[in-house]
Amino acid sequence: MSTGFVYGIHAVSRRLQQSPRHCRRLFCADKNSQRLSRLIEQARKAGVAVSIESRAQLSARCDSDKHQGCLLEIVATEPLASFEECLAAINDKSLLLVLDGVQDPHNLGACLRTADACGVDAVIIPRDRSVKMNATVRKVAAGGAETVPLIEVTNLVRCLKDLKQAGVWIYGTGDSASASLYEHDYRGPIALVMGAEGSGLRRLTMESCDHLVKLPMLGQVESLNVSVATGVCLYEILRSRSSKH
Amino acid sequence: MSTGFVYGIHAVSRRLQQSPRHCRRLFCADKNSQRLSRLIEQARKAGVAVSIESRAQLSARCDSDKHQGCLLEIVATEPLASFEECLAAINDKSLLLVLDGVQDPHNLGACLRTADACGVDAVIIPRDRSVKMNATVRKVAAGGAETVPLIEVTNLVRCLKDLKQAGVWIYGTGDSASASLYEHDYRGPIALVMGAEGSGLRRLTMESCDHLVKLPMLGQVESLNVSVATGVCLYEILRSRSSKH
Repeated sequence: MSTGFVYGIHAVSRRLQQSPRHCRRLFCADKNSQRLSRLIEQARKAGVAVSIESRAQLSARCDSDKHQGCLLEIVATEPLASFEECLAAINDKSLLLVLDGVQDPHNLGACLRTADACGVDAVIIPRDRSVKMNATVRKVAAGGAETVPLIEVTNLVRCLKDLKQAGVWIYGTGDSASASLYEHDYRGPIALVMGAEGSGLRRLTMESCDHLVKLPMLGQVESLNVSVATGVCLYEILRSRSSKH
Repeated sequence: MSTGFVYGIHAVSRRLQQSPRHCRRLFCADKNSQRLSRLIEQARKAGVAVSIESRAQLSARCDSDKHQGCLLEIVATEPLASFEECLAAINDKSLLLVLDGVQDPHNLGACLRTADACGVDAVIIPRDRSVKMNATVRKVAAGGAETVPLIEVTNLVRCLKDLKQAGVWIYGTGDSASASLYEHDYRGPIALVMGAEGSGLRRLTMESCDHLVKLPMLGQVESLNVSVATGVCLYEILRSRSSKH
Protein backbone atom coordinates (compact mmCIF):
# COMPACT_ATOMS: atom_id res chain seq x y z
CA MET A 1 0.00 0.00 0.00
CA SER A 2 1.63 3.24 -1.06
CA THR A 3 1.51 6.40 1.01
CA GLY A 4 1.78 10.00 0.01
CA PHE A 5 1.23 13.52 1.23
CA VAL A 6 -1.50 16.03 0.71
CA TYR A 7 -0.62 19.59 1.69
CA GLY A 8 -2.13 23.03 1.77
CA ILE A 9 -5.02 23.99 4.04
CA HIS A 10 -7.81 23.55 1.50
CA ALA A 11 -6.57 20.21 0.16
CA VAL A 12 -5.91 18.81 3.65
CA SER A 13 -9.30 19.85 4.99
CA ARG A 14 -11.07 18.36 2.00
CA ARG A 15 -9.20 15.08 2.26
CA LEU A 16 -9.93 14.82 6.00
CA GLN A 17 -13.58 15.34 5.19
CA GLN A 18 -13.81 13.03 2.18
CA SER A 19 -11.86 9.99 3.30
CA PRO A 20 -10.68 10.14 6.92
CA ARG A 21 -9.97 6.42 7.02
CA HIS A 22 -7.24 6.91 4.40
CA CYS A 23 -5.55 9.64 6.46
CA ARG A 24 -2.65 8.48 8.63
CA ARG A 25 -1.36 11.55 10.39
CA LEU A 26 -1.68 15.33 10.23
CA PHE A 27 1.57 17.29 10.60
CA CYS A 28 0.95 20.88 11.61
CA ALA A 29 3.40 23.75 12.04
CA ASP A 30 1.59 26.05 14.44
CA LYS A 31 -1.31 25.06 16.64
CA ASN A 32 -1.91 28.71 17.58
CA SER A 33 -2.84 29.74 14.06
CA GLN A 34 -6.60 29.90 13.74
CA ARG A 35 -6.78 28.13 10.38
CA LEU A 36 -4.39 25.39 11.47
CA SER A 37 -6.09 24.88 14.85
CA ARG A 38 -9.35 24.37 12.97
CA LEU A 39 -7.63 21.65 10.90
CA ILE A 40 -6.27 20.02 14.06
CA GLU A 41 -9.76 20.00 15.52
CA GLN A 42 -11.11 18.48 12.30
CA ALA A 43 -8.42 15.77 12.35
CA ARG A 44 -9.10 14.89 15.98
CA LYS A 45 -12.82 14.59 15.33
CA ALA A 46 -12.03 12.32 12.38
CA GLY A 47 -9.78 10.16 14.57
CA VAL A 48 -6.58 11.12 12.74
CA ALA A 49 -3.34 11.48 14.74
CA VAL A 50 -1.72 14.92 14.91
CA SER A 51 1.97 15.87 15.23
CA ILE A 52 3.35 19.38 15.65
CA GLU A 53 6.55 20.02 13.68
CA SER A 54 8.45 23.04 12.39
CA ARG A 55 7.70 24.46 8.96
CA ALA A 56 11.19 23.37 7.88
CA GLN A 57 10.43 19.79 8.90
CA LEU A 58 7.19 19.89 6.93
CA SER A 59 9.06 21.24 3.89
CA ALA A 60 11.57 18.39 4.16
CA ARG A 61 8.80 15.80 4.37
CA CYS A 62 6.98 16.92 1.25
CA ASP A 63 9.91 18.50 -0.61
CA SER A 64 8.08 21.79 -1.02
CA ASP A 65 7.61 25.00 0.93
CA LYS A 66 4.05 25.49 -0.29
CA HIS A 67 2.43 23.44 2.48
CA GLN A 68 0.90 26.42 4.35
CA GLY A 69 1.92 24.78 7.63
CA CYS A 70 0.01 21.54 7.19
CA LEU A 71 0.76 18.16 5.72
CA LEU A 72 -1.42 15.09 5.73
CA GLU A 73 0.10 11.64 5.35
CA ILE A 74 -2.31 9.52 3.39
CA VAL A 75 -2.73 6.09 1.97
CA ALA A 76 -2.88 6.85 -1.72
CA THR A 77 -6.50 6.62 -2.83
CA GLU A 78 -6.59 7.99 -6.32
CA PRO A 79 -9.64 6.61 -8.05
CA LEU A 80 -8.02 3.75 -9.91
CA ALA A 81 -9.37 2.71 -13.24
CA SER A 82 -7.88 0.72 -16.05
CA PHE A 83 -8.25 1.74 -19.66
CA GLU A 84 -10.26 -1.46 -20.19
CA GLU A 85 -12.80 -0.40 -17.53
CA CYS A 86 -12.96 3.02 -19.15
CA LEU A 87 -13.62 1.49 -22.59
CA ALA A 88 -16.31 -0.81 -21.21
CA ALA A 89 -18.14 2.14 -19.64
CA ILE A 90 -18.36 4.28 -22.82
CA ASN A 91 -21.83 5.66 -23.38
CA ASP A 92 -23.48 8.48 -25.28
CA LYS A 93 -22.57 11.05 -22.63
CA SER A 94 -18.97 9.95 -22.09
CA LEU A 95 -16.44 12.77 -21.86
CA LEU A 96 -12.75 11.92 -21.67
CA LEU A 97 -9.74 14.22 -21.48
CA VAL A 98 -6.48 13.08 -23.07
CA LEU A 99 -3.30 15.03 -22.25
CA ASP A 100 -0.58 14.27 -24.79
CA GLY A 101 2.57 14.74 -22.72
CA VAL A 102 1.84 17.56 -20.28
CA GLN A 103 5.02 18.13 -18.24
CA ASP A 104 4.12 20.66 -15.57
CA PRO A 105 2.47 19.32 -12.39
CA HIS A 106 0.56 22.60 -12.01
CA ASN A 107 -0.99 22.11 -15.43
CA LEU A 108 -1.92 18.48 -14.73
CA GLY A 109 -3.37 19.53 -11.36
CA ALA A 110 -5.39 22.38 -12.86
CA CYS A 111 -6.67 20.03 -15.61
CA LEU A 112 -7.83 17.48 -13.01
CA ARG A 113 -9.58 20.25 -11.08
CA THR A 114 -11.37 21.42 -14.22
CA ALA A 115 -12.08 17.83 -15.28
CA ASP A 116 -13.90 17.25 -11.99
CA ALA A 117 -15.90 20.46 -12.45
CA CYS A 118 -16.92 19.41 -15.98
CA GLY A 119 -17.91 15.86 -15.06
CA VAL A 120 -15.10 14.29 -17.10
CA ASP A 121 -15.15 10.48 -16.74
CA ALA A 122 -11.38 10.00 -16.83
CA VAL A 123 -8.14 11.77 -17.72
CA ILE A 124 -5.80 9.72 -19.91
CA ILE A 125 -2.04 10.34 -20.10
CA PRO A 126 0.81 8.46 -21.80
CA ARG A 127 2.96 6.46 -19.38
CA ASP A 128 6.14 8.06 -20.74
CA ARG A 129 6.77 11.76 -21.45
CA SER A 130 4.19 12.99 -18.95
CA VAL A 131 4.20 14.25 -15.40
CA LYS A 132 2.73 11.70 -12.98
CA MET A 133 0.48 12.07 -9.95
CA ASN A 134 2.42 13.64 -7.06
CA ALA A 135 1.83 15.90 -4.08
CA THR A 136 1.98 19.09 -6.17
CA VAL A 137 -0.56 17.72 -8.66
CA ARG A 138 -2.85 16.73 -5.78
CA LYS A 139 -2.63 20.13 -4.13
CA VAL A 140 -3.27 22.09 -7.32
CA ALA A 141 -6.15 19.76 -8.24
CA ALA A 142 -7.92 20.96 -5.04
CA GLY A 143 -9.82 17.69 -4.68
CA GLY A 144 -9.97 16.67 -8.35
CA ALA A 145 -7.16 14.12 -7.95
CA GLU A 146 -9.39 12.20 -5.54
CA THR A 147 -12.43 12.15 -7.80
CA VAL A 148 -11.30 11.88 -11.43
CA PRO A 149 -9.58 8.64 -12.50
CA LEU A 150 -6.15 9.26 -14.02
CA ILE A 151 -5.33 6.50 -16.48
CA GLU A 152 -1.82 5.89 -17.81
CA VAL A 153 -1.59 4.16 -21.17
CA THR A 154 1.51 2.70 -22.80
CA ASN A 155 0.59 3.60 -26.35
CA LEU A 156 -1.53 6.69 -26.81
CA VAL A 157 -2.16 6.15 -30.52
CA ARG A 158 -3.42 2.62 -29.87
CA CYS A 159 -5.60 3.99 -27.05
CA LEU A 160 -7.19 6.57 -29.37
CA LYS A 161 -7.78 3.85 -31.98
CA ASP A 162 -9.54 1.68 -29.38
CA LEU A 163 -11.67 4.63 -28.31
CA LYS A 164 -12.65 5.31 -31.92
CA GLN A 165 -13.68 1.70 -32.36
CA ALA A 166 -15.84 2.06 -29.26
CA GLY A 167 -17.65 4.94 -30.98
CA VAL A 168 -15.87 7.84 -29.31
CA TRP A 169 -15.32 11.00 -31.37
CA ILE A 170 -11.74 12.22 -30.99
CA TYR A 171 -11.32 16.01 -30.99
CA GLY A 172 -7.77 17.34 -31.02
CA THR A 173 -6.72 20.94 -30.63
CA GLY A 174 -4.07 22.54 -32.77
CA ASP A 175 -3.05 25.83 -34.35
CA SER A 176 -3.16 24.19 -37.77
CA ALA A 177 -6.84 23.27 -37.43
CA SER A 178 -9.12 24.86 -39.97
CA ALA A 179 -12.26 24.65 -37.82
CA SER A 180 -13.08 26.74 -34.77
CA LEU A 181 -14.00 25.14 -31.47
CA TYR A 182 -17.43 26.67 -31.99
CA GLU A 183 -18.23 24.92 -35.28
CA HIS A 184 -19.07 21.52 -33.77
CA ASP A 185 -22.01 20.33 -31.72
CA TYR A 186 -20.22 17.66 -29.66
CA ARG A 187 -22.91 14.99 -29.64
CA GLY A 188 -22.14 11.47 -28.55
CA PRO A 189 -19.16 10.17 -26.60
CA ILE A 190 -16.14 12.49 -26.88
CA ALA A 191 -12.44 12.45 -26.10
CA LEU A 192 -10.79 15.87 -26.07
CA VAL A 193 -7.06 15.64 -26.80
CA MET A 194 -4.81 18.48 -25.64
CA GLY A 195 -1.13 18.84 -26.55
CA ALA A 196 1.91 19.41 -24.38
CA GLU A 197 3.07 22.86 -23.29
CA GLY A 198 4.95 24.49 -26.18
CA SER A 199 5.02 21.58 -28.59
CA GLY A 200 1.31 20.80 -28.88
CA LEU A 201 0.00 17.51 -30.22
CA ARG A 202 2.49 15.07 -31.67
CA ARG A 203 2.01 14.23 -35.34
CA LEU A 204 0.76 10.68 -34.80
CA THR A 205 -1.64 11.86 -32.11
CA MET A 206 -2.96 14.54 -34.41
CA GLU A 207 -3.48 12.00 -37.19
CA SER A 208 -5.53 9.88 -34.79
CA CYS A 209 -8.11 12.62 -34.30
CA ASP A 210 -11.46 12.74 -36.09
CA HIS A 211 -11.53 16.53 -35.90
CA LEU A 212 -9.02 19.25 -35.14
CA VAL A 213 -10.32 22.46 -33.66
CA LYS A 214 -8.72 25.71 -32.57
CA LEU A 215 -9.55 28.60 -30.33
CA PRO A 216 -9.84 32.11 -31.78
CA MET A 217 -6.63 34.03 -31.01
CA LEU A 218 -7.24 37.75 -31.41
CA GLY A 219 -3.93 39.08 -30.11
CA GLN A 220 -0.27 38.35 -30.53
CA VAL A 221 0.37 35.40 -28.20
CA GLU A 222 0.61 32.13 -30.08
CA SER A 223 -1.26 29.87 -27.71
CA LEU A 224 -2.96 29.66 -24.33
CA ASN A 225 -1.69 27.90 -21.24
CA VAL A 226 -2.72 24.25 -21.68
CA SER A 227 -4.88 24.18 -18.54
CA VAL A 228 -6.69 27.36 -19.61
CA ALA A 229 -7.26 25.98 -23.13
CA THR A 230 -8.53 22.72 -21.60
CA GLY A 231 -11.04 24.64 -19.47
CA VAL A 232 -12.30 26.68 -22.41
CA CYS A 233 -12.74 23.55 -24.58
CA LEU A 234 -14.39 21.40 -21.90
CA TYR A 235 -16.86 24.12 -20.94
CA GLU A 236 -17.73 24.74 -24.60
CA ILE A 237 -18.42 21.01 -25.02
CA LEU A 238 -20.72 21.11 -21.97
CA ARG A 239 -22.46 24.27 -23.17
CA SER A 240 -22.97 22.90 -26.65
CA ARG A 241 -24.30 19.57 -25.40
CA SER A 242 -26.75 21.12 -22.97
CA SER A 243 -28.04 23.67 -25.49
CA LYS A 244 -28.82 20.92 -28.02
CA HIS A 245 -31.07 18.83 -25.80
CA MET B 1 13.98 54.45 -16.90
CA SER B 2 13.49 51.10 -15.20
CA THR B 3 15.05 47.89 -16.42
CA GLY B 4 14.00 44.32 -15.95
CA PHE B 5 14.55 40.83 -17.22
CA VAL B 6 12.69 38.61 -19.61
CA TYR B 7 13.67 34.95 -19.48
CA GLY B 8 12.78 31.66 -21.10
CA ILE B 9 13.50 30.86 -24.75
CA HIS B 10 10.04 31.67 -26.09
CA ALA B 11 9.66 34.94 -24.17
CA VAL B 12 13.17 36.14 -25.03
CA SER B 13 12.81 35.35 -28.72
CA ARG B 14 9.47 37.11 -28.89
CA ARG B 15 10.79 40.19 -27.12
CA LEU B 16 13.85 40.37 -29.41
CA GLN B 17 11.49 40.22 -32.34
CA GLN B 18 8.88 42.66 -31.07
CA SER B 19 10.97 45.48 -29.63
CA PRO B 20 14.71 45.05 -30.17
CA ARG B 21 15.41 48.68 -29.35
CA HIS B 22 14.22 48.07 -25.78
CA CYS B 23 16.58 45.10 -25.35
CA ARG B 24 19.87 45.90 -23.64
CA ARG B 25 21.78 42.64 -23.45
CA LEU B 26 21.19 38.92 -23.92
CA PHE B 27 22.80 36.67 -21.31
CA CYS B 28 23.15 33.10 -22.53
CA ALA B 29 24.38 30.01 -20.72
CA ASP B 30 25.55 27.80 -23.55
CA LYS B 31 26.34 28.96 -27.04
CA ASN B 32 26.64 25.35 -28.24
CA SER B 33 22.98 24.56 -27.58
CA GLN B 34 21.06 24.75 -30.82
CA ARG B 35 18.11 26.66 -29.38
CA LEU B 36 20.33 29.13 -27.55
CA SER B 37 22.65 29.65 -30.52
CA ARG B 38 19.58 30.54 -32.56
CA LEU B 39 18.70 33.16 -29.95
CA ILE B 40 22.26 34.54 -30.02
CA GLU B 41 22.05 34.82 -33.80
CA GLN B 42 18.69 36.57 -33.48
CA ALA B 43 20.10 39.03 -30.91
CA ARG B 44 23.14 39.83 -33.08
CA LYS B 45 20.96 40.50 -36.10
CA ALA B 46 18.85 42.82 -33.96
CA GLY B 47 21.95 44.65 -32.76
CA VAL B 48 21.63 43.48 -29.15
CA ALA B 49 24.81 42.73 -27.16
CA VAL B 50 25.41 39.15 -26.00
CA SER B 51 27.23 37.85 -22.91
CA ILE B 52 27.92 34.20 -22.07
CA GLU B 53 27.52 33.37 -18.38
CA SER B 54 26.97 30.25 -16.30
CA ARG B 55 23.45 29.04 -15.55
CA ALA B 56 24.08 29.86 -11.88
CA GLN B 57 24.93 33.45 -12.77
CA LEU B 58 21.75 33.73 -14.81
CA SER B 59 19.74 32.35 -11.87
CA ALA B 60 21.30 34.93 -9.57
CA ARG B 61 20.49 37.75 -11.99
CA CYS B 62 16.80 36.94 -12.31
CA ASP B 63 16.28 35.20 -8.97
CA SER B 64 14.87 32.10 -10.62
CA ASP B 65 16.16 28.86 -12.12
CA LYS B 66 13.47 28.74 -14.79
CA HIS B 67 15.40 30.81 -17.34
CA GLN B 68 16.17 27.91 -19.73
CA GLY B 69 19.67 29.30 -20.18
CA CYS B 70 18.71 32.73 -21.47
CA LEU B 71 17.98 36.07 -19.94
CA LEU B 72 17.30 39.34 -21.68
CA GLU B 73 17.90 42.63 -19.94
CA ILE B 74 15.26 45.05 -21.10
CA VAL B 75 14.10 48.56 -20.60
CA ALA B 76 10.66 47.97 -19.16
CA THR B 77 8.15 48.54 -21.94
CA GLU B 78 4.86 47.36 -20.60
CA PRO B 79 2.11 49.09 -22.51
CA LEU B 80 1.40 51.88 -20.07
CA ALA B 81 -2.06 53.23 -19.75
CA SER B 82 -3.73 55.23 -17.07
CA PHE B 83 -7.21 54.46 -15.85
CA GLU B 84 -8.27 57.85 -17.22
CA GLU B 85 -7.09 56.89 -20.72
CA CYS B 86 -8.91 53.60 -20.37
CA LEU B 87 -12.15 55.38 -19.37
CA ALA B 88 -11.86 57.83 -22.24
CA ALA B 89 -11.52 54.98 -24.75
CA ILE B 90 -14.64 53.05 -23.69
CA ASN B 91 -16.78 52.04 -26.64
CA ASP B 92 -19.46 49.49 -27.45
CA LYS B 93 -16.91 46.70 -27.96
CA SER B 94 -14.77 47.43 -24.90
CA LEU B 95 -13.74 44.38 -22.91
CA LEU B 96 -11.89 44.85 -19.62
CA LEU B 97 -10.63 42.28 -17.16
CA VAL B 98 -10.54 43.20 -13.46
CA LEU B 99 -8.60 40.91 -11.09
CA ASP B 100 -9.64 41.56 -7.48
CA GLY B 101 -6.47 40.68 -5.59
CA VAL B 102 -4.85 37.81 -7.49
CA GLN B 103 -1.71 36.83 -5.57
CA ASP B 104 0.07 34.24 -7.69
CA PRO B 105 2.33 35.56 -10.49
CA HIS B 106 1.54 32.45 -12.54
CA ASN B 107 -2.15 33.28 -12.42
CA LEU B 108 -1.59 36.93 -13.35
CA GLY B 109 0.70 35.82 -16.19
CA ALA B 110 -1.78 33.26 -17.51
CA CYS B 111 -4.57 35.88 -17.31
CA LEU B 112 -2.51 38.38 -19.34
CA ARG B 113 -1.79 35.67 -21.92
CA THR B 114 -5.50 34.86 -22.21
CA ALA B 115 -6.42 38.56 -22.17
CA ASP B 116 -4.21 39.10 -25.22
CA ALA B 117 -5.78 36.13 -26.99
CA CYS B 118 -9.28 37.48 -26.31
CA GLY B 119 -8.56 41.04 -27.39
CA VAL B 120 -9.04 42.46 -23.89
CA ASP B 121 -8.38 46.22 -23.86
CA ALA B 122 -6.79 46.37 -20.40
CA VAL B 123 -6.35 44.36 -17.21
CA ILE B 124 -7.11 46.29 -14.04
CA ILE B 125 -5.71 45.34 -10.61
CA PRO B 126 -5.83 47.02 -7.19
CA ARG B 127 -2.54 48.66 -6.21
CA ASP B 128 -2.53 46.86 -2.85
CA ARG B 129 -3.23 43.17 -2.20
CA SER B 130 -2.23 42.06 -5.68
CA VAL B 131 0.84 40.61 -7.31
CA LYS B 132 2.61 43.15 -9.55
CA MET B 133 4.31 42.81 -12.91
CA ASN B 134 7.59 40.91 -12.53
CA ALA B 135 9.81 38.56 -14.52
CA THR B 136 7.72 35.50 -13.65
CA VAL B 137 4.51 37.22 -14.74
CA ARG B 138 6.18 38.27 -18.00
CA LYS B 139 7.48 34.78 -18.74
CA VAL B 140 4.15 33.06 -18.02
CA ALA B 141 2.29 35.68 -20.07
CA ALA B 142 4.28 34.48 -23.12
CA GLY B 143 4.07 37.89 -24.79
CA GLY B 144 0.81 39.11 -23.25
CA ALA B 145 2.61 41.37 -20.76
CA GLU B 146 3.98 43.35 -23.71
CA THR B 147 0.66 43.81 -25.45
CA VAL B 148 -2.08 44.19 -22.82
CA PRO B 149 -2.00 47.31 -20.61
CA LEU B 150 -1.93 46.45 -16.90
CA ILE B 151 -3.53 49.27 -14.93
CA GLU B 152 -3.15 49.62 -11.16
CA VAL B 153 -5.90 51.50 -9.37
CA THR B 154 -5.89 52.74 -5.78
CA ASN B 155 -9.55 52.15 -5.10
CA LEU B 156 -11.16 49.30 -6.99
CA VAL B 157 -14.72 50.10 -5.89
CA ARG B 158 -14.36 53.68 -7.10
CA CYS B 159 -12.91 52.39 -10.38
CA LEU B 160 -15.92 50.11 -10.94
CA LYS B 161 -18.26 53.00 -10.17
CA ASP B 162 -16.47 55.17 -12.74
CA LEU B 163 -16.70 52.39 -15.31
CA LYS B 164 -20.43 52.01 -14.65
CA GLN B 165 -20.93 55.73 -15.16
CA ALA B 166 -19.12 55.39 -18.47
CA GLY B 167 -21.71 52.82 -19.52
CA VAL B 168 -19.71 49.65 -18.82
CA TRP B 169 -21.60 46.58 -17.63
CA ILE B 170 -19.84 44.99 -14.66
CA TYR B 171 -20.01 41.19 -14.52
CA GLY B 172 -18.61 39.54 -11.40
CA THR B 173 -18.15 35.84 -10.84
CA GLY B 174 -19.09 34.13 -7.61
CA ASP B 175 -20.38 30.85 -6.19
CA SER B 176 -23.32 32.69 -4.71
CA ALA B 177 -24.52 33.93 -8.10
CA SER B 178 -27.95 32.70 -9.12
CA ALA B 179 -27.34 33.08 -12.86
CA SER B 180 -25.16 30.91 -15.05
CA LEU B 181 -22.45 32.39 -17.24
CA TYR B 182 -24.54 31.23 -20.19
CA GLU B 183 -27.66 33.23 -19.37
CA HIS B 184 -26.37 36.60 -20.56
CA ASP B 185 -25.69 37.95 -24.04
CA TYR B 186 -22.82 40.30 -23.18
CA ARG B 187 -23.72 43.21 -25.43
CA GLY B 188 -22.08 46.58 -25.00
CA PRO B 189 -18.93 47.48 -23.10
CA ILE B 190 -18.09 44.91 -20.43
CA ALA B 191 -15.78 44.56 -17.44
CA LEU B 192 -15.36 41.00 -16.18
CA VAL B 193 -14.38 40.92 -12.50
CA MET B 194 -12.62 37.81 -11.15
CA GLY B 195 -11.88 37.16 -7.47
CA ALA B 196 -8.67 36.19 -5.75
CA GLU B 197 -7.51 32.60 -5.38
CA GLY B 198 -9.43 30.98 -2.54
CA SER B 199 -11.32 33.99 -1.24
CA GLY B 200 -13.11 35.11 -4.40
CA LEU B 201 -14.58 38.60 -4.78
CA ARG B 202 -14.57 40.88 -1.76
CA ARG B 203 -17.98 41.95 -0.54
CA LEU B 204 -17.71 45.57 -1.68
CA THR B 205 -16.44 44.47 -5.08
CA MET B 206 -19.34 42.06 -5.40
CA GLU B 207 -21.82 44.80 -4.50
CA SER B 208 -20.34 46.96 -7.27
CA CYS B 209 -21.27 44.45 -9.97
CA ASP B 210 -24.34 44.74 -12.20
CA HIS B 211 -24.54 40.98 -12.58
CA LEU B 212 -23.04 38.00 -10.82
CA VAL B 213 -22.57 34.84 -12.83
CA LYS B 214 -21.20 31.41 -12.04
CA LEU B 215 -19.82 28.47 -13.95
CA PRO B 216 -21.57 25.10 -13.77
CA MET B 217 -19.66 22.86 -11.34
CA LEU B 218 -20.64 19.24 -11.93
CA GLY B 219 -18.16 17.55 -9.60
CA GLN B 220 -16.88 17.96 -6.09
CA VAL B 221 -14.26 20.69 -6.37
CA GLU B 222 -15.53 24.04 -5.15
CA SER B 223 -14.00 26.32 -7.73
CA LEU B 224 -11.69 26.47 -10.73
CA ASN B 225 -8.21 27.92 -10.83
CA VAL B 226 -8.69 31.67 -11.37
CA SER B 227 -6.81 31.76 -14.67
CA VAL B 228 -8.84 28.83 -16.00
CA ALA B 229 -12.12 30.45 -14.90
CA THR B 230 -11.00 33.72 -16.52
CA GLY B 231 -10.36 31.92 -19.81
CA VAL B 232 -13.73 30.18 -19.76
CA CYS B 233 -15.57 33.45 -19.03
CA LEU B 234 -13.69 35.60 -21.56
CA TYR B 235 -14.15 33.06 -24.35
CA GLU B 236 -17.85 32.74 -23.56
CA ILE B 237 -18.19 36.54 -23.78
CA LEU B 238 -16.46 36.48 -27.19
CA ARG B 239 -18.58 33.57 -28.41
CA SER B 240 -21.78 35.18 -27.26
CA ARG B 241 -20.92 38.54 -28.81
CA SER B 242 -19.95 37.10 -32.17
CA SER B 243 -23.01 34.85 -32.38
CA LYS B 244 -25.35 37.79 -31.82
CA HIS B 245 -24.14 39.96 -34.68
